[in-house]
Amino acid sequence: MISEIWTDPTNLAVAMADSARAVDAVIDRLLAKPDGPEARVYEAMRYAALAPGKRLRPFLVLAGSHLFGVSQRSALQAAVAIELLHTYSLVHDDLPAMDDSDLRRGRPTCHKAFDEATAILAGDGLLTLAFEVLAHPDTHGDPAVRVELVSCLAKAAGSAGMVGGQMIDLMAEHDHTLDIGAITRLQRLKTGALIAFACEAGAILGKASNEHRRALIGYAHDLGLAFQIADDLLDAEGTAAETGKSVGRDAEAGKATFVSILGLEGARKQALALVDQAIGQLDDFGDKADLLCQVAHFVVERKS
Amino acid sequence: MISEIWTDPTNLAVAMADSARAVDAVIDRLLAKPDGPEARVYEAMRYAALAPGKRLRPFLVLAGSHLFGVSQRSALQAAVAIELLHTYSLVHDDLPAMDDSDLRRGRPTCHKAFDEATAILAGDGLLTLAFEVLAHPDTHGDPAVRVELVSCLAKAAGSAGMVGGQMIDLMAEHDHTLDIGAITRLQRLKTGALIAFACEAGAILGKASNEHRRALIGYAHDLGLAFQIADDLLDAEGTAAETGKSVGRDAEAGKATFVSILGLEGARKQALALVDQAIGQLDDFGDKADLLCQVAHFVVERKS
Repeated sequence: MISEIWTDPTNLAVAMADSARAVDAVIDRLLAKPDGPEARVYEAMRYAALAPGKRLRPFLVLAGSHLFGVSQRSALQAAVAIELLHTYSLVHDDLPAMDDSDLRRGRPTCHKAFDEATAILAGDGLLTLAFEVLAHPDTHGDPAVRVELVSCLAKAAGSAGMVGGQMIDLMAEHDHTLDIGAITRLQRLKTGALIAFACEAGAILGKASNEHRRALIGYAHDLGLAFQIADDLLDAEGTAAETGKSVGRDAEAGKATFVSILGLEGARKQALALVDQAIGQLDDFGDKADLLCQVAHFVVERKS
Repeated sequence: MISEIWTDPTNLAVAMADSARAVDAVIDRLLAKPDGPEARVYEAMRYAALAPGKRLRPFLVLAGSHLFGVSQRSALQAAVAIELLHTYSLVHDDLPAMDDSDLRRGRPTCHKAFDEATAILAGDGLLTLAFEVLAHPDTHGDPAVRVELVSCLAKAAGSAGMVGGQMIDLMAEHDHTLDIGAITRLQRLKTGALIAFACEAGAILGKASNEHRRALIGYAHDLGLAFQIADDLLDAEGTAAETGKSVGRDAEAGKATFVSILGLEGARKQALALVDQAIGQLDDFGDKADLLCQVAHFVVERKS
């Protein structure tokens, strides 16, 4: 049971810290450095994946798994796979040819700490490892469950999901003409699809009913959109010291965002409305969904 | 049965052309362009994956599947997944930060035809799609078979396989001190692991005996090494017009290769000895392995 990971499952901050520690311990073991010269790519993968972070997505996997009595080992495997995949996306998005970012999670980006070639390879290795982890028998005793996780993650991460979203984002640079519909679609692909999979993974592992699965997907869609609006607000209002990454990039690039379209006040209101809507999706789960309700508030109140 | 793809299964050139056509038709369907601005990444994925090529790895999947009476649909899915994965590795390896190549398969490399950001994303999308294809129910009715394919491909492609091999290769640039053991290990990771999986995929799909599976892996190891020696010979002796890619890069970079260590004559002899050894591994399969025997000769006699 997931509750073995959480020393105090009523306290979000403690539960998030417990989850992050458990996830990092698995990643540390998975990325044990080999003897050969290929050790360098392992170092880069470790540097990126073990950098301090909120570990929001793996937390969503664990909190979702908690609803269905999924075993700790299964839930942790899926949580780790999603964190590896998320980390690969950060490493590649930060590359000079992409967003050209110097700072990530409060430290130099992977290509700054190593070099571009190593960062590209580290991202490739992390992406591949995510699928290896999901396919591993530790993830679930039933191979049909494991292969469903692989399939859903690939769809969320690929050209009809995250990769497609990043492509739209690159095409939209300097484009002031995007309307709220286009921005919402961009978000749904770029960050929403992976957050949705993080929330759905527990339902897949727990062989939940379609109704429960739909409820979690609904929660994830609202949460993902709230998360992105909060991200745009942090880029507009936060500091690099607080967020641990470069800020003010959107306005500098003249990019259309939720903030540029809705204004600061409108964006804040929209994010809060989405949080209420997300929480409403979880009615059926009662107290068991307490941490998922708390994390929805956290997503829009966070400072980093 | 695979024989439905092959109009003349006794003729290697015809069978390879038939296989390539069948694989390309599936890729064409998989990468149908969507309406949104993300169409650009699909264009880049199509440009790279549908470029003229030998389609050696998917052919190995089909020829290996033929030994075990695997259905055409199953074998084609695995063949397509391997070709997508191989294509991603070419797109990323050609990037300016990696091998910085302008020419591939007789055309400008992906980042030359599009741009670096799009090429990085196209590679990421192709890698992810490979796993989506393997996880699809069309690949095999038994989810345990599908998830085994995912697991084996991830191991072959990841940091303990192809990604690790490319890291070693980058570290070895300008390194004249690599001995034959180090070069062989580099090859085994960088190109050998994926070729081995291509040969093994049919055995996994056909639920072959461990003995048959070991025979195919043995064949693949000899074939993979012969293939790499032939590649080094082409880089030393071929022309860009013949090979469709930049040549003479190894000597220019002062890189240790099989040719720099064994000499031209020694490398040629070694490649031929490996072909004989590879073919010897297939004794148990009799005439059914005829195309695998023919392709082993082709691998060292090819001009591109």
